[in-house]
Amino acid sequence: MRLATVSVDGRARCVAVLNSGARLDVALAARDVAGPAGEALRTGSLQALIEAGPGAQAALAALVAEAEGGRHGGAMAPGGAPLMAPIPAPRKNIFCVGRNYAEHIAEGDRAQKQNVGVTEHPVFFTKPPTALVPPEGDVLVFPAVSTAIDYEVELALVIGKGGRNIPKSAAYDHVFGYTILNDITARDIQRRHGGQYFKGKGLDGSCPLGPWIVTADEIGDPHALSIGLTVNGERRQNGNTGDMIFDIPTLIASLSEGLTLEPGDILATGTPSGVGYAMDPPRFLKDGDVVVCEISGIGTLRNPVRAV
Amino acid sequence: MRLATVSVDGRARCVAVLNSGARLDVALAARDVAGPAGEALRTGSLQALIEAGPGAQAALAALVAEAEGGRHGGAMAPGGAPLMAPIPAPRKNIFCVGRNYAEHIAEGDRAQKQNVGVTEHPVFFTKPPTALVPPEGDVLVFPAVSTAIDYEVELALVIGKGGRNIPKSAAYDHVFGYTILNDITARDIQRRHGGQYFKGKGLDGSCPLGPWIVTADEIGDPHALSIGLTVNGERRQNGNTGDMIFDIPTLIASLSEGLTLEPGDILATGTPSGVGYAMDPPRFLKDGDVVVCEISGIGTLRNPVRAV
Repeated sequence: MRLATVSVDGRARCVAVLNSGARLDVALAARDVAGPAGEALRTGSLQALIEAGPGAQAALAALVAEAEGGRHGGAMAPGGAPLMAPIPAPRKNIFCVGRNYAEHIAEGDRAQKQNVGVTEHPVFFTKPPTALVPPEGDVLVFPAVSTAIDYEVELALVIGKGGRNIPKSAAYDHVFGYTILNDITARDIQRRHGGQYFKGKGLDGSCPLGPWIVTADEIGDPHALSIGLTVNGERRQNGNTGDMIFDIPTLIASLSEGLTLEPGDILATGTPSGVGYAMDPPRFLKDGDVVVCEISGIGTLRNPVRAV
Repeated sequence: MRLATVSVDGRARCVAVLNSGARLDVALAARDVAGPAGEALRTGSLQALIEAGPGAQAALAALVAEAEGGRHGGAMAPGGAPLMAPIPAPRKNIFCVGRNYAEHIAEGDRAQKQNVGVTEHPVFFTKPPTALVPPEGDVLVFPAVSTAIDYEVELALVIGKGGRNIPKSAAYDHVFGYTILNDITARDIQRRHGGQYFKGKGLDGSCPLGPWIVTADEIGDPHALSIGLTVNGERRQNGNTGDMIFDIPTLIASLSEGLTLEPGDILATGTPSGVGYAMDPPRFLKDGDVVVCEISGIGTLRNPVRAV
């Protein structure tokens, strides 16, 4: 399933995107679904659907199959309803990983004239929910705050079943699905706060997410996806998720050591090479640019850039 | 006012702690308060009270004054109801600051045989909501994950009025109140993830918070408070919030540059010297220890340590 959140009359509503592109309003379609599954679906919240677990998700899958067969025509969301971030109000910061593709590490070390190389453990940091941007929403550039706003296309996973100390062997049992995250970064700020990434990664408008969550069953191998990014149509990043240094089971196992992951948590898995600050000369985002992220099997995430 | 959250029959309820120690149940006391202020108070949520703004807070102050005068006797929460974290479910990670007291920077540089010194900008990082521990709740030690669990007493502020690009001169207008935060840190993990603090600062049981929020009007100068910590009654930290390198207006101005702060956000302001890892030999927390944080004008935050 492709699960998204759209804004209808100012309210967030979970939809399933059908093969035709039509969007099934989950709460409307679930009007007659009995029991706790029906209750969860009728909240119209993708977060609630994830928390409700396999029963509610199976009930939704049945509704989607019926809709693909032509039923539930009266339960479609308005075609023009704008997409929101798939989880518009996550309950905590978004987990992120730095330095997870070898060529990106190499380009960064070259640009900074250092030789850090591959770290022994994943480099975790976070982005706050206030940074979120929906598909087609504005990536913000604050000229008074940063003159070095950069892009990073990333595969993001969404946790389904929570847990602590999750072994690598069970990691995929905890993945609900996948989406695209653009880890917009103020390079000057990233380095100046004692080397801690948070502030430079946490500005408003620095976390485009979407366009939807593709459930894990439809992705197959998440380490066999092409991943790329263009700016104004010019290709900048062009990689494959198979090139991650720390794979998804390793990331989940490492992050969850002594730290409980919860349903709906989002984890971005790092970016391949081609970022703007590693170019010679560096090329940063500016007002009017359009950034498009693409991951095969998921789709595209398009965002204009706006100076404020 | 001293505003806390207690657990009554498994539900979180906001209370005002009176001079006698009795706890006025805010929702019960507000039964007859009209308008939006009354609605906000009757949610029984400290987060909702903060979001509701000055009107609701003034209405609560009036109720508290009446209760100090002997009224609202029927609106007291059960005396034995355990304290929760004052904001039990914050909407995002807790903002934290590292390296903000000179003697603590010096002891850390000595212990790590480095000479980083004072940074030019505040060192921001975050702790996830899953790390929160209530007063008297267990600080957790995971022997399989970390052998170097350490303490850090910190003054934490709570944002009242949100904002972005808040100037230093207006910073205090955005502070709702103050509480105590113990920034429990796994020193071995803090350093091993490419130097990013998040994972080592984010374990379950690593963020005792409380015992309550003291509203800003009662604190006066937040840079004239004694701040200390004991382990099993032995004094380990003993400082003054006047020794911060980046003061509260500077922290709020820096953090909010291009980043929107929201009502209920929590910002911990760094720890003075005396942490366990900088001792020779280092002294880390272990099962059965009891850690007590104290800040004048706020109170004490006591937590036992438990290995899991």
